[in-house]
Amino acid sequence: MAPRRKKIYEGKAKVLYEGPEPGTLVQYFKDDATAFNAQKKATIEGKGVLNNRLSEYFMTGLTNIGVPNHFIRRLNMREQLIRQVEIVPLEVIVRNFAAGSISKRLGLDEGTPLPRPIVEYSYKNDALGDPLVPEEYIIAFGWANQQDLDDIVSLALRVNDFLSGVFYGVGIKLIDFKIEIGRVWDGDFMRLIVADEISPDSCRLWDIKTNQKLDKDVFRRDLGSLTDAYSEVARRLGVLPTNATNIKPTLIN
Amino acid sequence: MAPRRKKIYEGKAKVLYEGPEPGTLVQYFKDDATAFNAQKKATIEGKGVLNNRLSEYFMTGLTNIGVPNHFIRRLNMREQLIRQVEIVPLEVIVRNFAAGSISKRLGLDEGTPLPRPIVEYSYKNDALGDPLVPEEYIIAFGWANQQDLDDIVSLALRVNDFLSGVFYGVGIKLIDFKIEIGRVWDGDFMRLIVADEISPDSCRLWDIKTNQKLDKDVFRRDLGSLTDAYSEVARRLGVLPTNATNIKPTLIN
Repeated sequence: MAPRRKKIYEGKAKVLYEGPEPGTLVQYFKDDATAFNAQKKATIEGKGVLNNRLSEYFMTGLTNIGVPNHFIRRLNMREQLIRQVEIVPLEVIVRNFAAGSISKRLGLDEGTPLPRPIVEYSYKNDALGDPLVPEEYIIAFGWANQQDLDDIVSLALRVNDFLSGVFYGVGIKLIDFKIEIGRVWDGDFMRLIVADEISPDSCRLWDIKTNQKLDKDVFRRDLGSLTDAYSEVARRLGVLPTNATNIKPTLIN
Repeated sequence: MAPRRKKIYEGKAKVLYEGPEPGTLVQYFKDDATAFNAQKKATIEGKGVLNNRLSEYFMTGLTNIGVPNHFIRRLNMREQLIRQVEIVPLEVIVRNFAAGSISKRLGLDEGTPLPRPIVEYSYKNDALGDPLVPEEYIIAFGWANQQDLDDIVSLALRVNDFLSGVFYGVGIKLIDFKIEIGRVWDGDFMRLIVADEISPDSCRLWDIKTNQKLDKDVFRRDLGSLTDAYSEVARRLGVLPTNATNIKPTLIN
């Protein structure tokens, strides 16, 4: 067997390999789906291919409007070249409508419009189940400082305005989404950029007319074929003019 | 003939009538197209119907993300109910790529990406040809103060992020657009909101793949059927699942 690239990190849905140049990584999208902190697991044929393409699509759109992010270029069906970042250990969640944990926490019906977009943070820690944390914790434990958080909120709200537009244009309501943020250095100057991925794994997406779910809740709640849902998103955006049956898993080369 | 509503203002492409309640107006979209400060004129059958629907669509999307604007509801094919505002006498222009006057002024090829989105102002004055004005003029002549301009830039950039997303989702590049801003009072509290219209009359829209123009430049530069271009935008956005031949001009009732 040919020598393999060095694996840097393996997560639930992606693997990071050493990149071809310093400061780069190769991000490989797996077909694995997990939910409820990996208590529910499955392999969804073609999911990695779809998310690789969709994350490329959204990150490229963000680059176009000047929102800095880690995406460099797509390498193949399942891999993309990205900038290496130092990940801020937070999940940054932007909510436009109540769903999921905020619905449970506050007793709000799913789909209730929020008074304004709400930005919240979870501490990235699987053992603890990625718990919600107030800004006070983040600053006290040094995961980010106040200036970082101000910059993160600005980035997150710009991403929200842009993605809300992208989805509005194709008849989809952006209920909420999660991004991760990474630090990069240009010389001594530290900048925060959008990292990880943007895909139906990390967004809640409802059809505007029918409220049909087109995101990972289809898997979490056993609502049908996840690949069909993600393919529908890709089809509307013109990203993959194909259907689920055409998406064959490919091996990493 | 039945008594007519009171006409408040007639512009080149729209008429404003007194609304049914205090603080409201009815905005009627004409089929008239003008360019080069009304030196070029034509009647484009169906344009008013398309712009009424498209402006409704964009303003509703802005309302969804919390960008305040004058739109209340569409009344019929050519009319919409809007909030009465005191118009700030500026055209607020946001540019992502060079085109039109900035290309001429700076000798930039049309389509050149700008280093970042540029917000500029024209003084709304037909006799003067809506001249470009620096902020210094605006503040000195009292058309707006520095706080107003800061708020206007924030609004304009949010509109830009959102519209860039909407068009990106349907394979269109937002080259530039123009908005107008109005003042409204909630008691003693003055707020600035987006007014006028958002339509292919007020945007430059190029197909992402072919650079085909889908905006008023089709009329300005005699590039084909304006109704076909606007219908294509509406079709991609799912606003009017129809084509130009279905759009009959309707009389104001």
